[in-house]
Amino acid sequence: MKAKVYVTLKKGVLDPQGRAVMGALKSMDFGEVKDVRVGKYMELELDGASKEVEEKRLREMCEKLLANTVVENYRIEIE
Amino acid sequence: MKAKVYVTLKKGVLDPQGRAVMGALKSMDFGEVKDVRVGKYMELELDGASKEVEEKRLREMCEKLLANTVVENYRIEIE
Repeated sequence: MKAKVYVTLKKGVLDPQGRAVMGALKSMDFGEVKDVRVGKYMELELDGASKEVEEKRLREMCEKLLANTVVENYRIEIE
Repeated sequence: MKAKVYVTLKKGVLDPQGRAVMGALKSMDFGEVKDVRVGKYMELELDGASKEVEEKRLREMCEKLLANTVVENYRIEIE
């Protein structure tokens, strides 16, 4: 089964990469851009049991490796 | 308005970052992981005109800066 994981910086955490992208967009005449936040997006192919079990396992993967839960949030989608 | 941009590597393009993540997950006893592809996820805050105009502008941003269309695909979602 396929799973998607979205990792984003928590609100209030400074996002220098997003700032840089916004600056670049503004300098390219995309003045309508008011804010940019950059995150990670992962597609995982899993050979797992049930959806319920895999969701639990994915949460574990996120907590342990995929996201830094001190400054990042994560969201899981299983197809 | 808010927009989300997903940038992923095209099929067939080697993803060393994904490989590294997969290796790490396997070594942490997540053996059910068969493949991992890592992409980028961006949230943009736009102060734009209509949804139609902004979608066109976002495509332009992706083509020019946000994605490397030689090796990457992008997907846009406007809220």
